[in-house]
Amino acid sequence: MEVNKEITLKNIPTKASEHYRNFPMVPRVVYGKGSFEQLGDILMPKRKHSEAPMIFLVDDVFEGTELLRRIPTIFSDQIILISAEEEPKTIQVDALVKMIKDQFVEMPSGVIGIGGGTLLDLAKAVAIMLTNKGDASSYQGWDLVHKKAIYHVGIPTISGTGAEVSRTTVLLGPEKKLGINSDYTTFDQVVLDPELTKGVPKEQWFYTGMDCYIHCIESLTGTYLNAFSQSYGEKSLDLCKEVFLGNITADDSREKLMMASWHGGMSIAYSQVGVAHAMSYGLGYVLGVKHGIGNCLVFKYLKDFYPEGVRLFEEMVQKHQIELPSGICENLTDAEMDTMISVALGMEPLWENALGKNWKSKISSEKLRSIYKKI
Amino acid sequence: MEVNKEITLKNIPTKASEHYRNFPMVPRVVYGKGSFEQLGDILMPKRKHSEAPMIFLVDDVFEGTELLRRIPTIFSDQIILISAEEEPKTIQVDALVKMIKDQFVEMPSGVIGIGGGTLLDLAKAVAIMLTNKGDASSYQGWDLVHKKAIYHVGIPTISGTGAEVSRTTVLLGPEKKLGINSDYTTFDQVVLDPELTKGVPKEQWFYTGMDCYIHCIESLTGTYLNAFSQSYGEKSLDLCKEVFLGNITADDSREKLMMASWHGGMSIAYSQVGVAHAMSYGLGYVLGVKHGIGNCLVFKYLKDFYPEGVRLFEEMVQKHQIELPSGICENLTDAEMDTMISVALGMEPLWENALGKNWKSKISSEKLRSIYKKI
Repeated sequence: MEVNKEITLKNIPTKASEHYRNFPMVPRVVYGKGSFEQLGDILMPKRKHSEAPMIFLVDDVFEGTELLRRIPTIFSDQIILISAEEEPKTIQVDALVKMIKDQFVEMPSGVIGIGGGTLLDLAKAVAIMLTNKGDASSYQGWDLVHKKAIYHVGIPTISGTGAEVSRTTVLLGPEKKLGINSDYTTFDQVVLDPELTKGVPKEQWFYTGMDCYIHCIESLTGTYLNAFSQSYGEKSLDLCKEVFLGNITADDSREKLMMASWHGGMSIAYSQVGVAHAMSYGLGYVLGVKHGIGNCLVFKYLKDFYPEGVRLFEEMVQKHQIELPSGICENLTDAEMDTMISVALGMEPLWENALGKNWKSKISSEKLRSIYKKI
Repeated sequence: MEVNKEITLKNIPTKASEHYRNFPMVPRVVYGKGSFEQLGDILMPKRKHSEAPMIFLVDDVFEGTELLRRIPTIFSDQIILISAEEEPKTIQVDALVKMIKDQFVEMPSGVIGIGGGTLLDLAKAVAIMLTNKGDASSYQGWDLVHKKAIYHVGIPTISGTGAEVSRTTVLLGPEKKLGINSDYTTFDQVVLDPELTKGVPKEQWFYTGMDCYIHCIESLTGTYLNAFSQSYGEKSLDLCKEVFLGNITADDSREKLMMASWHGGMSIAYSQVGVAHAMSYGLGYVLGVKHGIGNCLVFKYLKDFYPEGVRLFEEMVQKHQIELPSGICENLTDAEMDTMISVALGMEPLWENALGKNWKSKISSEKLRSIYKKI
């Protein structure tokens, strides 16, 4: 089979020259417990008129909760509840855009995503596709978007993905899973209210937090790193350690993990992920294993590559009594295993980041096979 | 005498509600050794037409150097060399704006500041005053600017002030030294090229770096801090320690101090300075002592307030063989001393941040007098 080498989950320089990417930062951020209350005031000056609604895309776990009632809807604003059970898709984006265009004569004043990585990525993509013609899938790639998105706001309710601050929105298209990476993808506004992450189930909290932790380990030990991303990555890693290994209050933990996610997302500016993401992609491709848990399943067996990182990871798993699934790859056919390995090895920039220019001499199909067999 | 309680050098919340300030971040940043080379490409799409010049405000220490030749001027662009010997003044801003308006029929396409805090602050202020009527002094304060500034770019050539990322521009006006604090003040673009900080004289490097270090100590030990600013402040402090106490290469040191300044500036979003800045302001007011060195002169004697911070500061002074001036307050009259104390005590938010709500019971004129006498 042909492996799509473009597939990566992060927004990453692959050439030396891209280490000087002119990186777009979120131009406006409010942080604080209870800062969600400010949303009405923040949106007011962005409302074009009463017929141009604000569209709130909200994780449907919040159905019937207090949070929904606190969303500052006025005029013809609409709340759309969306399940985050599956990863976001380009056809889902297209359907949302069509629905919004059919329902309203006027272009919306803004799109607000409230939820985890899935909802944030959907909000970014819908904001882009409201002003750009065609299907979302035709914009998957780097810098293919040429028209400014409509005003869009990200409000995370779980911490770890870094989606709140990144310049990509990762979508599953008809042919590939790839981000819409562009300067117009980044949110115009982010509201960081750690109170909103109360009530996240423990497993989800852990796997999403590990998305951040593993990313930090991979990028900090990688060869692509520069001082900008290093400083953000180091801070993110320190905060992850405090959250998952320290003895801090639940309140502090929520605040610190929210900042870990933020800094982890910033560190992507000039860094790259590594072995865990490459191999996790193989798992996802063949078995549909989701991103956060896939990284954990793989990372456990990467002591040869990340000795200290894996040691701490094991401590975290134990401390929080997380039972990682096992026997995942037990019933794979040889052909499926070969595909998995070939998909993983196809992620060249990730291997080059992890092992250097001559990475091909340092890794083999057999090595990957032996790791996958343990999972 | 009447003390202007509004005077502060940083951009700071003074009320609880302002802990939720909707903070503007620099929307675009490029980091990397040699990234200055990209300036031409960055400016090109911002050029309105050939008669709308880019105005480069550059520290005159670069007169005759290679850097001037590398500035990508085309069409009617203009380079204006400015001395940073004195702190930036509102009348200087007004004069620059008049000069630019007299010389060009069209509004410039942008203003680019290249230098330390003084040049960066001038560039921000000129960009604001090109679109806002009246004198710069009438905008000193919080959120008095109502028209968007013209496109402005900050390129630091010395690290520590945080001016590259803050939402203020501190100016000496006819009546007060106070920032133009506004959402329009923040740069539209920053270029962080650590190579540009090569050749900074040791004393200046040290005092400017200490601006960052002391700010971190004051804000991290303060009562106003939240988790957002704490995470930035902690990273900035870690980097300061590496730079001033670690054994790293000159190259690494430049990179890390540039990032320390950046994170230190970001931490100002939701934090406040403390005793050193309050007392340093007294020195500046009565004796004209400059900001960076004033902080150092005071900080040395603040063991009672910042025991660990002062201990490390002394190590840094020794390691880099910095000779702090002494006997500064020797010949003060009693009246001058009283003024100095009264100016320092007038900085209420700084004292409240440092010592808590009942700060007045924890500090006295006599305590300040005894400290000043040592300086």
